[in-house]
Amino acid sequence: MPKSPPLKPADFVNAISQHVSSVCIITTEFDGDRFGLTATAVASVCAEPPRLLACVNRSGITHDQIISSGCFAVNVLAEEQERTAMVFAGMGGPSVERFDSGEWNTLATGAPILQAACANFDCQIHETMEQSTHTILIGNVVATDTKPGSEALLYGGRRFRQLRKVFSDRAKATDGYL
Amino acid sequence: MPKSPPLKPADFVNAISQHVSSVCIITTEFDGDRFGLTATAVASVCAEPPRLLACVNRSGITHDQIISSGCFAVNVLAEEQERTAMVFAGMGGPSVERFDSGEWNTLATGAPILQAACANFDCQIHETMEQSTHTILIGNVVATDTKPGSEALLYGGRRFRQLRKVFSDRAKATDGYL
Repeated sequence: MPKSPPLKPADFVNAISQHVSSVCIITTEFDGDRFGLTATAVASVCAEPPRLLACVNRSGITHDQIISSGCFAVNVLAEEQERTAMVFAGMGGPSVERFDSGEWNTLATGAPILQAACANFDCQIHETMEQSTHTILIGNVVATDTKPGSEALLYGGRRFRQLRKVFSDRAKATDGYL
Repeated sequence: MPKSPPLKPADFVNAISQHVSSVCIITTEFDGDRFGLTATAVASVCAEPPRLLACVNRSGITHDQIISSGCFAVNVLAEEQERTAMVFAGMGGPSVERFDSGEWNTLATGAPILQAACANFDCQIHETMEQSTHTILIGNVVATDTKPGSEALLYGGRRFRQLRKVFSDRAKATDGYL
């Protein structure tokens, strides 16, 4: 198969905006300071061992501190946490201290865990992979916290979205076959 | 930081089920045959160059054929395509031919493109990374197709979900800052 010419970045961005995903805050702690950013490129890798990935922009300070600390947490935001998503995306204004938004604790690694999140994953870096502007962080999950009944905040079509409430049998459980 | 003991896979599966994402059909074409499976672990990697990733279970035939062909397509399902998601997850019954579900064509690589999907990404493999039961496929996107106004089918909490309709200004566009 001959190599095809690359696509224009704008066409890719337009198409990937149709892909909807949970909004996550990726955090770390290093040398007594806490760091964090908002990200949507998070995916499960495998369950045995428990492992996930997050793609993080290399240009911010959080990226470098995650690499230095060797650990990070993924906090899956609940649907009422849009304000926290904006603060950690740098939209809260220059005087806003990011970790003033929400209540935080820690689990195993010391990376900040947002208590009211939908789910939290505390990870030790297993492997990293540089990809142009981003690094794929692959983390072994060493601790989790889950809030059953809490629904995730979503991002798609360049805006925050929420899940439709389940009223009918049509949205029945699938026994986790996916 | 000392290494923490691994988490139980069941605890990880329980927590990751809170993470909601689009439902995708990953396809390839090799030696005249078409292959495909349903997957939810898909994420954008970077826009320059346009690149995405998909985590695919190594135990199925589709995985091996993707590696052989060197290309794959990611089809982001629209909310009315739950039946296609089930067929490609192997829930359609033994006599069901997967590609009889929906209308298919091709773009650049020859990997099957689902016409009525919310978005399609035609990719050439850039890099692969084996991770226990799964392989992370990193693809350079060489062609896309997008259906503006189409909403993505979602999976979370072990069931198919749909987006809440947008009625208010609260869900205003964020100018793509995430």
